[in-house]
Amino acid sequence: MVDAEDGLGRWPVNCEIPVQWGDMDALNHVNHTVFIRWMETARMHYFVACGFTMLLEEEGIGPILAGLKVDYHAPVTFPDAMTIQTTMTRIGNSSFDMGYRIASSARGGETVATATVYGVVFDYKAGKATPIPDELRAKVLELEASVT
Amino acid sequence: MVDAEDGLGRWPVNCEIPVQWGDMDALNHVNHTVFIRWMETARMHYFVACGFTMLLEEEGIGPILAGLKVDYHAPVTFPDAMTIQTTMTRIGNSSFDMGYRIASSARGGETVATATVYGVVFDYKAGKATPIPDELRAKVLELEASVT
Amino acid sequence: MVDAEDGLGRWPVNCEIPVQWGDMDALNHVNHTVFIRWMETARMHYFVACGFTMLLEEEGIGPILAGLKVDYHAPVTFPDAMTIQTTMTRIGNSSFDMGYRIASSARGGETVATATVYGVVFDYKAGKATPIPDELRAKVLELEASVT
Amino acid sequence: MVDAEDGLGRWPVNCEIPVQWGDMDALNHVNHTVFIRWMETARMHYFVACGFTMLLEEEGIGPILAGLKVDYHAPVTFPDAMTIQTTMTRIGNSSFDMGYRIASSARGGETVATATVYGVVFDYKAGKATPIPDELRAKVLELEASVT
Repeated sequence: MVDAEDGLGRWPVNCEIPVQWGDMDALNHVNHTVFIRWMETARMHYFVACGFTMLLEEEGIGPILAGLKVDYHAPVTFPDAMTIQTTMTRIGNSSFDMGYRIASSARGGETVATATVYGVVFDYKAGKATPIPDELRAKVLELEASVT
Repeated sequence: MVDAEDGLGRWPVNCEIPVQWGDMDALNHVNHTVFIRWMETARMHYFVACGFTMLLEEEGIGPILAGLKVDYHAPVTFPDAMTIQTTMTRIGNSSFDMGYRIASSARGGETVATATVYGVVFDYKAGKATPIPDELRAKVLELEASVT
Repeated sequence: MVDAEDGLGRWPVNCEIPVQWGDMDALNHVNHTVFIRWMETARMHYFVACGFTMLLEEEGIGPILAGLKVDYHAPVTFPDAMTIQTTMTRIGNSSFDMGYRIASSARGGETVATATVYGVVFDYKAGKATPIPDELRAKVLELEASVT
Repeated sequence: MVDAEDGLGRWPVNCEIPVQWGDMDALNHVNHTVFIRWMETARMHYFVACGFTMLLEEEGIGPILAGLKVDYHAPVTFPDAMTIQTTMTRIGNSSFDMGYRIASSARGGETVATATVYGVVFDYKAGKATPIPDELRAKVLELEASVT
């Protein structure tokens, strides 16, 4: 499955997004940046679900995207319906890793891309990275544990 | 409803597209270009449904976008689920008009934008506009008539 | 040139934007939404130049995009360098019109698209349209008059 | 500089792209997918310069994007002018690696992102990966050597 810390890596959040015609580029495949846009949408659903979005609004503590790594396995074309799944795989002191996998309905659920996103928790008022609040850590573990 | 020629304007094609987080711009609303991208996707579904896509592949006769007019009625934010509807409203000799309306689920189905797209039928082998083939005209009328 | 009120329509603002490869869609032309994105960038330069951006930041009075109309004259491909020009063509009580034209370097400066954007001046604190402040009106006329 | 094979890693290709207002997302920074779109444009300029684009057109042998890794160092906002540089860092049997770095003019030339893209050479007629043609390999080395 996915290399993850204890209690993580359970893929609790997913979203369904249809391919749009304009997602394709001049090579007649969905452009590789679109996969990363889909992952971002799934990530925001995860952040809402674990309370990170509320933490940003209420206390100015939010995520920063430090890096990402994507592996493309198969091309995608219009029309298709994608399922994007995400999970937290590591929670460090002030950083975290998230896993992603994207499946194609037209390809019978085949995984067409996998990825890891590297995040940092940032205190926007202090202007620097900050330790992950215990409450957020607990909610992430709770969200991951919701998958039986 | 919509100003349309006889037998047209019946909104036979629609598609559902969720708002993506990255569709929003720095003003925290879905960027106005995204509405036009959604309309394009609905248009391609219409072109598949009426055989225009196949006509392009088989005979090199396809649509060209000559212009568009969009009216924005209300802002859209993430998350939301949009319904985009389209219909042919006019079939001329070698040109056609299509109507669009976009509804927001988060706003209880309220129409957030309406639009008209002006198209021309182009013979890619001859390199010039061409009269709309009778067969295509018949299929468009049949598609529109499918809505009771 | 352009149909405009007295003292307007002088095209005082322009910007140069290179075509990106990914701007092209599956028909091997720059996608029609990209033209509208370019126009938006030119519009923001205009709003900075006439003080509208500062008015939004300082007093919460800013522009809303109510509609647009675009005419596409010729296709664009990668690589190319575009010049996008904009001008105010009408200043009403609380609404305004702006003209756009987009020229292609690869086509020897040929105009590939023209457009009109319909805007409204909005008081974000009051939550409603508001008359255009005299100071903004004066700065727009000054900006337009800067073109000899 | 960059970890590269002998004769590679010399950054022979670069392009300048201005930030567009609509590149910013709801967090008021240029969205992270835009950096990857810029890199793609630089890559296409490299492929034109080394003859890979012509090889695809003439013999159906072209590049496939297998993966990428991006590190984001600093945020970017509108307006700004970016310089995107790219270089081949490894030429394998049928795969290759390319390095990228993106610099911000508004930040005095500071590097705001670095990346590696993993590519495969594909024979589109045979439908499978193919060894990198000697001629392409020679042209890449020649292009890299053009930087003194």
